[in-house]
Amino acid sequence: MAQPRIGIWFIGARGGVAASATLGLIGLQKRLADSVGLVSELPQFARLDLVAWDTLVVGGHDIRDVTLTEEVARLHRESRVFDAKLVAAAQGELSSVDTRIRPGTIFRCGTTIEKLAANAMLGHSHELPRHAVERIQSDLKNFQQELHLDCIIVVNVASTEPATNFVDLPPHWSDLDRLLDEGPACPLSASSLYAIAAFQLGMPYINFTPSPGATPAALGELAELRKTCHAGQDGKTGETLLKSVLAPMFAARHLEVMSWVGHNIFGNLDGEVLDDPVNKSAKIQGKDKLLGLILGYDPQTLVSIEYIRSMGDWKTAWDHIHFRGFLGTPMTLQFTWQGCDSLLAAPLVLDLVRFVELANRRGEIGLLSQFGSFFKRPLGLENHAFDHQSSVLNEWAARQSQ
Amino acid sequence: MAQPRIGIWFIGARGGVAASATLGLIGLQKRLADSVGLVSELPQFARLDLVAWDTLVVGGHDIRDVTLTEEVARLHRESRVFDAKLVAAAQGELSSVDTRIRPGTIFRCGTTIEKLAANAMLGHSHELPRHAVERIQSDLKNFQQELHLDCIIVVNVASTEPATNFVDLPPHWSDLDRLLDEGPACPLSASSLYAIAAFQLGMPYINFTPSPGATPAALGELAELRKTCHAGQDGKTGETLLKSVLAPMFAARHLEVMSWVGHNIFGNLDGEVLDDPVNKSAKIQGKDKLLGLILGYDPQTLVSIEYIRSMGDWKTAWDHIHFRGFLGTPMTLQFTWQGCDSLLAAPLVLDLVRFVELANRRGEIGLLSQFGSFFKRPLGLENHAFDHQSSVLNEWAARQSQ
Amino acid sequence: MAQPRIGIWFIGARGGVAASATLGLIGLQKRLADSVGLVSELPQFARLDLVAWDTLVVGGHDIRDVTLTEEVARLHRESRVFDAKLVAAAQGELSSVDTRIRPGTIFRCGTTIEKLAANAMLGHSHELPRHAVERIQSDLKNFQQELHLDCIIVVNVASTEPATNFVDLPPHWSDLDRLLDEGPACPLSASSLYAIAAFQLGMPYINFTPSPGATPAALGELAELRKTCHAGQDGKTGETLLKSVLAPMFAARHLEVMSWVGHNIFGNLDGEVLDDPVNKSAKIQGKDKLLGLILGYDPQTLVSIEYIRSMGDWKTAWDHIHFRGFLGTPMTLQFTWQGCDSLLAAPLVLDLVRFVELANRRGEIGLLSQFGSFFKRPLGLENHAFDHQSSVLNEWAARQSQ
Amino acid sequence: MAQPRIGIWFIGARGGVAASATLGLIGLQKRLADSVGLVSELPQFARLDLVAWDTLVVGGHDIRDVTLTEEVARLHRESRVFDAKLVAAAQGELSSVDTRIRPGTIFRCGTTIEKLAANAMLGHSHELPRHAVERIQSDLKNFQQELHLDCIIVVNVASTEPATNFVDLPPHWSDLDRLLDEGPACPLSASSLYAIAAFQLGMPYINFTPSPGATPAALGELAELRKTCHAGQDGKTGETLLKSVLAPMFAARHLEVMSWVGHNIFGNLDGEVLDDPVNKSAKIQGKDKLLGLILGYDPQTLVSIEYIRSMGDWKTAWDHIHFRGFLGTPMTLQFTWQGCDSLLAAPLVLDLVRFVELANRRGEIGLLSQFGSFFKRPLGLENHAFDHQSSVLNEWAARQSQ
Repeated sequence: MAQPRIGIWFIGARGGVAASATLGLIGLQKRLADSVGLVSELPQFARLDLVAWDTLVVGGHDIRDVTLTEEVARLHRESRVFDAKLVAAAQGELSSVDTRIRPGTIFRCGTTIEKLAANAMLGHSHELPRHAVERIQSDLKNFQQELHLDCIIVVNVASTEPATNFVDLPPHWSDLDRLLDEGPACPLSASSLYAIAAFQLGMPYINFTPSPGATPAALGELAELRKTCHAGQDGKTGETLLKSVLAPMFAARHLEVMSWVGHNIFGNLDGEVLDDPVNKSAKIQGKDKLLGLILGYDPQTLVSIEYIRSMGDWKTAWDHIHFRGFLGTPMTLQFTWQGCDSLLAAPLVLDLVRFVELANRRGEIGLLSQFGSFFKRPLGLENHAFDHQSSVLNEWAARQSQ
Repeated sequence: MAQPRIGIWFIGARGGVAASATLGLIGLQKRLADSVGLVSELPQFARLDLVAWDTLVVGGHDIRDVTLTEEVARLHRESRVFDAKLVAAAQGELSSVDTRIRPGTIFRCGTTIEKLAANAMLGHSHELPRHAVERIQSDLKNFQQELHLDCIIVVNVASTEPATNFVDLPPHWSDLDRLLDEGPACPLSASSLYAIAAFQLGMPYINFTPSPGATPAALGELAELRKTCHAGQDGKTGETLLKSVLAPMFAARHLEVMSWVGHNIFGNLDGEVLDDPVNKSAKIQGKDKLLGLILGYDPQTLVSIEYIRSMGDWKTAWDHIHFRGFLGTPMTLQFTWQGCDSLLAAPLVLDLVRFVELANRRGEIGLLSQFGSFFKRPLGLENHAFDHQSSVLNEWAARQSQ
Repeated sequence: MAQPRIGIWFIGARGGVAASATLGLIGLQKRLADSVGLVSELPQFARLDLVAWDTLVVGGHDIRDVTLTEEVARLHRESRVFDAKLVAAAQGELSSVDTRIRPGTIFRCGTTIEKLAANAMLGHSHELPRHAVERIQSDLKNFQQELHLDCIIVVNVASTEPATNFVDLPPHWSDLDRLLDEGPACPLSASSLYAIAAFQLGMPYINFTPSPGATPAALGELAELRKTCHAGQDGKTGETLLKSVLAPMFAARHLEVMSWVGHNIFGNLDGEVLDDPVNKSAKIQGKDKLLGLILGYDPQTLVSIEYIRSMGDWKTAWDHIHFRGFLGTPMTLQFTWQGCDSLLAAPLVLDLVRFVELANRRGEIGLLSQFGSFFKRPLGLENHAFDHQSSVLNEWAARQSQ
Repeated sequence: MAQPRIGIWFIGARGGVAASATLGLIGLQKRLADSVGLVSELPQFARLDLVAWDTLVVGGHDIRDVTLTEEVARLHRESRVFDAKLVAAAQGELSSVDTRIRPGTIFRCGTTIEKLAANAMLGHSHELPRHAVERIQSDLKNFQQELHLDCIIVVNVASTEPATNFVDLPPHWSDLDRLLDEGPACPLSASSLYAIAAFQLGMPYINFTPSPGATPAALGELAELRKTCHAGQDGKTGETLLKSVLAPMFAARHLEVMSWVGHNIFGNLDGEVLDDPVNKSAKIQGKDKLLGLILGYDPQTLVSIEYIRSMGDWKTAWDHIHFRGFLGTPMTLQFTWQGCDSLLAAPLVLDLVRFVELANRRGEIGLLSQFGSFFKRPLGLENHAFDHQSSVLNEWAARQSQ
């Protein structure tokens, strides 16, 4: 039987993560990239009926006025990533994807993101939320029809929106639905409008960002009503990954973490957006509170994320962990993580598409908590220890391939 | 029912680890030390019937001419550890323990360790292995009788012996037994003589060092014959602990470790002994090969341990992990671990005494593989990932308290 | 001829720096401390006619309700510094110094510093600046008379005051003098009142803090009018010292510094005060701008100072320097500095007292720019390169001893 | 007047340093590279009559069977250096240089270097030293004639030869000269044969490596006899540069360095050669002893250089400096240097060519000690402090441009 033909629809399709994932997918399809970095290619997932790389097709929304080809070239040049041969070989495919990227929405994305928006976007700036959702759905339906897709997975990899308070959102879809007609008074932001659009069409949604996306309860309800699924929130790629790996060690050895300081510097577009304090606060919230949850007490913590132009897409995190051992002895662990943000995120995004597609195909509905190891805020999973989260994934996989 | 009265018999009773463990035990008994650093005091072990700190009494063997009180004072002064109040309050108890420390054996310990030996030891320098074992047993029996002990746990925390090849040792006790009469031709070294002495008296033995101890197959057989138990080998306190925590993360994320370099500097007596290449090689073997076992392939590795006087009991490890992410992107994680070696080891030694005593009391015989999380070379446990090893311990505990 | 008898008058006499300097001075006088860390004890200054340690006597002002003995004990216990023998031997002398510490002034020190003030201080809280100056002078004169001192050097080592703008201060003393009668409208803060008090009595003043002190032009004029001298500003002890050492290397090798990020964490009282943003901004200004002055262009810079309780008096600075080499190659230097703040500052304070006393005795008047190597903001010295500043000091010394 | 036309003759012309320098020179000539990293382009040298980049032509010796173009491509691909545009634009020039690279000599270079040698070299393997010198001279004369060069500067950037003991070499040229006829018994190695060849033709020689080169006294005498000049030894590009910058700070602040540990890892050809202990010992000698010379006492030191394949041309140095401050307080400075070895060395090589050419043109004879800031072993300059060495260079330059 022929494998299903699957679409990946990136929100933020010309950003660093989507550009890297798209180039990587092309590389996998052309046999110019190997499987390193791809979780779904590990032996423990070999017996899963995951979709083949060849069956995936990319489209998406973006708000900026660059091309995907330019974004790939910029990463290649400024951040010294990608093999020159792969970049050359992928030019045609990158251009094709570019033709399938449509103007997104900047509804309640904050002024920093608005400034990035292309002129083409300005036509949509006073659009009602309801109309934005309908426009997004029209784009998704066109993508599906033109490319004869069996399924589309919508993936949010756009810049971080300003922190919002969910408390006041109505918990049921029927009540939230009405707010879409309210214009500026509507409390939802773009990331949630995309989720609504996807769910109403029965499409799964993955939120790889700290933005609200499908996290509000009413949206979870909508996903269940439309019998589709979602996963999130905020990809765990670097410093927070290490926190979720190291903190359990301190706990298991009964070493008391007195303080945990983490400083992150990086220079990509995400960093530029996070230089705006309202956007940054949304990000930092997710990087810190796992410590208390893992340790069972709250050490003094400090997290900073700073935009340093010269770093390009490279993120350096310095963490200083001050802990107390036996007989009150203070000791220290420091680490420096030097990773390329987009290249750490891109394979996880491709993995999630394959995993979520399988879960969706098998009829799983609502929040998919088994993919919590991929996220800083693992929705549906209370345990933040990475090893536990990995076990949850492996056990799910073992059940699928029985 | 009164709790059993338990003896801890340290091989290397005046070294940094034993001195710290003894002082810590006194602190716990006097309520001058809290439980931080003690694994056995974690909530998941609260329902185990572990012996109370008050029931433990310390004795041991050593080969050096210092006093325990001096060793504690030296650590306090040179390495700036211990609370001054605790040191002052423990003077009487430390002196008592000192009277219970007997001359050990330096059989086949190599010239570097021999040079540390006190004049009093020289009388034993041509002792036959069989006679050394008998002398050790006489010391153990006196300790038991004088202090009315229900059980003695023998713990090896002495300096690392030169690397030996076990391959040629006869695998059965009956054959090995005969070699004890051979004098210099006997292939066993001191750490194993202590283990033989303990096992023949039915006493458990814990090997916290890289020295052979009870690891040769024939000794394991002897432990089973005498219906006693043992655990080992080589306490996992710092850099190797981090390797066993971090390597599984790289594996779970399919990030390819290209090279893992680790440099360790420290300045205590253990360091001085390891400055002799024949002693060092025994140590380094255990610090490195877990990477291949966890990752499933062998990255280039390098481990050094260097004696730097000024560091005292503090060990600094710098590790540089060079790994390859998606699309061949090279990235780096570096960490610096600054820990006080004796204070990291001491609580684990106390934990092991309590855990092994319980296992022994419950009738467990032979190798106790459930304590592998404490060791660099976890005898009986093939999985080197720390989270897995912790689960094994927790599951054992859960079974005990049912 | 008998050496002159010299008083050191510390502003902030019970803070960490003054406590360490006082204890160190007692140690030098009792031959319980060696010369390590003391610049004035280097061979190149051996021929200078510097005052002997035995001739120095300590008094001072403070606003807090602790004793010097308690402060020393706290540093010893919490930050694990000082030799126990020295602390014990110095008890009598520390108590004597304590009797010579008088209540200071908190005029315009900001609410964070005000909160630290003892009840005894509250009586002075509505004091006019003029009256505060007079009270300070009365304390200084009593100190001089009671101890028969030939000279008093006033040294500001108090907590950092909120940043103030000097621009609007009248440049001449005759105009500034009048503002002392204005009460709350007076634009001067405590550190400057102490300087005025000292200068009017013809006493030298050293400003080891970022607070304004004697930096306003009108105060410099006053020093000259009263034929006394001063030096400052803001002791260069750690991260900034390294900047002034490393930045000239990048310049000399034509390596382009693209960004220089520095994060500082520490947990002493100074840190607690700096946790208030208004106080912090005064501090940060001095840590950063030397880079542009040394390099000749302005790289992107970031400096943070964060209060992390568990660090005590220990400051850890992590700096990440991203630079561009030949053919545009980006490279990185990172350093981690782990120093004990008070113990780095204390010897420099003692050195400055000796150097300034000599300059004063030799008749130097006004700003002493030759001591710029000791300061983050080297008043009177435009070159921030440490090697140049050291040469200036050495050349001055060579001239003195001719 | 037309500028002189100058040849650069690289020993090791296809190695990483020469390849980078050659590509960089082409970039400068084509205005595709800027001046960053080039010391000779700093403002303080603007008034010197240095040769223009356009007048320089490259040739050289090598022993390996690769092409310069391949070496540049390998660095570009494996170590992610160089701009792709520059590499593309330089293809023609690189090929031209390749035609001017002649087989060198491997006389007494040790087996590790011999294994790198091309088949073409084997014909010369039993060559007498005298014949090797003559062959080298023939190559140099051909280069000069064919390209109409006014002067050739010979620069040794070849792999490090095994450590040799100079003590037994005769101190005068007339005696050493005779040994050239002795075959295998001749105590000189290749680097010195090249120097002899250059000096006898009146050409200057720069030794950028730890190999003996022109360092033996008799060779210095020869340079003077032939009225030419030389400079050396062993380029100071990374860790040792930092030592020569940081050690003076500890001295100036009277902070006692207790231990200085440095670990270097890198993966280029130089690293592969240094993996042979006999070659490594030559290198390490130069990296360490400057500390004692700067500090005036000998702290415990440790230097390692390890070959880690995955690092490519990138060298990471981790240094741990343990120092004692006031009142015996132990403190720590650690740094991590991540630099690209060839790109750090290449501009210094080009600078030295320009500086040495000017000195030669102005009639300076013998050892040029004013360029000591470029070298780990600054021949003729006893002061190892980098700031002092920079002053020496600047003062020489000031004299030249008067």
